[in-house]
Amino acid sequence: MQRAAALVRRGCYPRTLGPWGRGQSSAAAEASAVLKVRPERSRRDRILTLESMNPQVKAVEYAVRGPIVLKAGEIELELQRGIKKPFTEVIRANIGDAQAMGQQPITFLRQRIHLTSLSLLPERFCACAGSYSASQGVNCIREDVAAYITRRDGGVPADPDNIYLTTGASDGISTILKILVSGGGKSRTGVMIPIPQYPLYSAVISELDAIQVNYYLDEDNCWALNVNELRRAVREAKEQCDPKVLCIINPGNPTGQVQSRKCIEDVIHFAWEEKLFLLADEVYQDNVYSPDCRFHSFKKVLYEMGPEYSSNVELASFHSTSKGYMGECGYRGGYMEVINLHPEIKGQLVKLLSVRLCPPVSGQAAMDIVVNPPVPGEESFEQFSREKESVLGNLAKKAKLTEDLFNQVPGIHCNPLQGAMYAFPRIFIPAKAMEAAQTHQMAPDMFYCMKLLEETGICVVPGSGFGQREGTYHFRMTILPPVEKLKTVLQKVKDFHIKFLEKYA
Amino acid sequence: MQRAAALVRRGCYPRTLGPWGRGQSSAAAEASAVLKVRPERSRRDRILTLESMNPQVKAVEYAVRGPIVLKAGEIELELQRGIKKPFTEVIRANIGDAQAMGQQPITFLRQRIHLTSLSLLPERFCACAGSYSASQGVNCIREDVAAYITRRDGGVPADPDNIYLTTGASDGISTILKILVSGGGKSRTGVMIPIPQYPLYSAVISELDAIQVNYYLDEDNCWALNVNELRRAVREAKEQCDPKVLCIINPGNPTGQVQSRKCIEDVIHFAWEEKLFLLADEVYQDNVYSPDCRFHSFKKVLYEMGPEYSSNVELASFHSTSKGYMGECGYRGGYMEVINLHPEIKGQLVKLLSVRLCPPVSGQAAMDIVVNPPVPGEESFEQFSREKESVLGNLAKKAKLTEDLFNQVPGIHCNPLQGAMYAFPRIFIPAKAMEAAQTHQMAPDMFYCMKLLEETGICVVPGSGFGQREGTYHFRMTILPPVEKLKTVLQKVKDFHIKFLEKYA
Repeated sequence: MQRAAALVRRGCYPRTLGPWGRGQSSAAAEASAVLKVRPERSRRDRILTLESMNPQVKAVEYAVRGPIVLKAGEIELELQRGIKKPFTEVIRANIGDAQAMGQQPITFLRQRIHLTSLSLLPERFCACAGSYSASQGVNCIREDVAAYITRRDGGVPADPDNIYLTTGASDGISTILKILVSGGGKSRTGVMIPIPQYPLYSAVISELDAIQVNYYLDEDNCWALNVNELRRAVREAKEQCDPKVLCIINPGNPTGQVQSRKCIEDVIHFAWEEKLFLLADEVYQDNVYSPDCRFHSFKKVLYEMGPEYSSNVELASFHSTSKGYMGECGYRGGYMEVINLHPEIKGQLVKLLSVRLCPPVSGQAAMDIVVNPPVPGEESFEQFSREKESVLGNLAKKAKLTEDLFNQVPGIHCNPLQGAMYAFPRIFIPAKAMEAAQTHQMAPDMFYCMKLLEETGICVVPGSGFGQREGTYHFRMTILPPVEKLKTVLQKVKDFHIKFLEKYA
Repeated sequence: MQRAAALVRRGCYPRTLGPWGRGQSSAAAEASAVLKVRPERSRRDRILTLESMNPQVKAVEYAVRGPIVLKAGEIELELQRGIKKPFTEVIRANIGDAQAMGQQPITFLRQRIHLTSLSLLPERFCACAGSYSASQGVNCIREDVAAYITRRDGGVPADPDNIYLTTGASDGISTILKILVSGGGKSRTGVMIPIPQYPLYSAVISELDAIQVNYYLDEDNCWALNVNELRRAVREAKEQCDPKVLCIINPGNPTGQVQSRKCIEDVIHFAWEEKLFLLADEVYQDNVYSPDCRFHSFKKVLYEMGPEYSSNVELASFHSTSKGYMGECGYRGGYMEVINLHPEIKGQLVKLLSVRLCPPVSGQAAMDIVVNPPVPGEESFEQFSREKESVLGNLAKKAKLTEDLFNQVPGIHCNPLQGAMYAFPRIFIPAKAMEAAQTHQMAPDMFYCMKLLEETGICVVPGSGFGQREGTYHFRMTILPPVEKLKTVLQKVKDFHIKFLEKYA
């Protein structure tokens, strides 16, 4: 009704308002008479209800924008309405959106995207922003991506035909999983995912009614991936399903671990042995902070393992404009490189992509610019390098700061943040707090995070949203706020945690 | 190998090339030794094959970018390589992409999008292009869309909470269908779609393993929708499935018919009677050419039918930046207005959308600008009006021209193009041509279209890609090339058709 009143003020609305905002017009009365329906209002059951909806969709959970984030939104509205809280703002440390937390876009990227949309760079961008592109993405952008991959991987060749531009990496991951999942009963496709994981994977597995096969990262060993654990997982899974896919996130999300080259070789060998289609989510490939770690692409390692592997292991690798030093989340730019596909499958994949026509051309443009940064000697190079180093240096500093500060707090243990943009500390939850959580019908870490949010305004995501070993609890917090703000946030979390321990001692 | 050579020339590549482009490096040799795998190349079976892939994806067809379009691409490459053909260019009249065929973007739209990306319009665009937006879309854009709908519908109120921004209309349609489909066996959800249809619908139904329930538009009556045919379809469907959804495309694609208000009321009443969730695909709402036709939104008609309908019928209406006078396909801008959802379903829908994070912000910006055109008195108004009228006037002229010319051709009958941007003429295919088609293992209209492509370079889509009554054949051709080119195209189709009839007489 308020909205109707507002519309009247705007002059968009007839001045006679009936109980439904407009009143029963003569057209409506006539229609009702013709159709012989009594015009009183009756409430009928809905066709689409929790019972009748797609059960696979009902089972989907996506904690990164889940219940705690909805609660954060409500609290923000309350703050806007002047309701007093122990804090003046909600800090959204739940989602990997750097620019939303104040990170500046890279000047070169933005200028280029801009010139592209003005069609001032025909030689660089051979498509029209207003038209659909080819479903696999603009050809010359795919060539640029292939050239980028080749340079990144020290000369290991990438074929543009194996490159698919996507609407963010999420779209590519979802598409590949969709084409892979088949079978029924004990032949239903099993998809191996790390625990903890980025919950896109569990959500898509749920949507597709595939079988989620968990393999646990080793928290006591910096979240390392242990091939014995992969073997354990696949062995047990074979009793229930047909394991066909192995998903790796490197650098990890939420865990931030950066896999060693040896580990990657072991994983590839395991996939080769067990006949698993490999998905390598490498969106954080530019976010490596630990001086002892280095990003190794699955593609490169696979190639260097020789042709028995490089000609046979089916591998899809994913990248995105949303992370790294770019932080261009809103453009929904991404690509996947998919190698060793059966020749007949390529056509099926392009067919599937064609139904959605094409990814947003502006996102493709953004991806093109990301893979074509300025090189030494070019006018833009200095500023670009400076800005990139500043962003990444800042993130590295914040990674260390976060790890150190959390590890000073009794009852919190935080593994080193080797890469990505998150801390995933383990929290000790006292027995009394567990009981309180149970009373509230919440997982203990959700209870903890809700309390944190209500008392400090800091929004993080409970570890249960990512998966964790039974009996352990965590939360995921981004390291994206500016340094000074991050220090304040960390201090508040520390103070909260100490009070929490005291309260529920 | 050519690519490898090119990479060497670019200096990205070691100069010693082995049979796999790089040669076995020492790292690879070492790895092979450690893993005890003999390094010769052997070809293993693929994990992902036509047999093992998702059968629902295998069943998907999308003719608009299907086999004939792939053939057109091959022919283009041959032309580029200098192979002589009876024509010098391929004319892609298969897809509704206006700007790809030379239509100019609207100045106001492009300037605004541009200023938005420069963040020079903070009061207009309350989001950051680099960040993820809310999953339902930027709030103030949703408010603008609601205001647009209210103005368009003469004051019928639209609630921003019911507006969801999407990655093109395809994304919204796919999401709504996904949440609706459930059940198994004879309880599997049936989705009613028009025949002929836009094959996104059949593709998504296939992906979701739902049941496609065809209702036939009446070709002898300008492709009118007859409620008796809806009743026939739902009655028969109930023996096989649980019909739950009714999809309408108005103005129609590929058929171009614009539904009368009376027809829309009848459809709404039918949906109310049969308890069907209504999907109204209205992406061509600005493309109405026939002076006897007018666009009536389902939302408006529903509202004016009084509260028994307007409070109960679950309706999702879709719009896009890709069609109309805008033709902004590459931005992937779209929205859906979904009313009368069960309160618990709203949360489920937003949850499902949140897994993909958000639609591209540039597409949301484009949609925002589309719903906020200049008004009389504003500086941009004159030019905007002029350009809009020019585009739409041109399309109307081409619609009539196409209908008239096709109807002069013996063996072709073309219904009036009341709206949208396609002709869908019926073609007579002689018996000998049917036999030839069978020899080539093609549907007769595919055979016809292939011949048309090979002999004239004109790429259209066979009617079998959209559905048609048994024993009838059609093709869909866009009316998007510039007038003079379109006349040439039509003349060539005419000449081809006459020769075709003679050849297969």
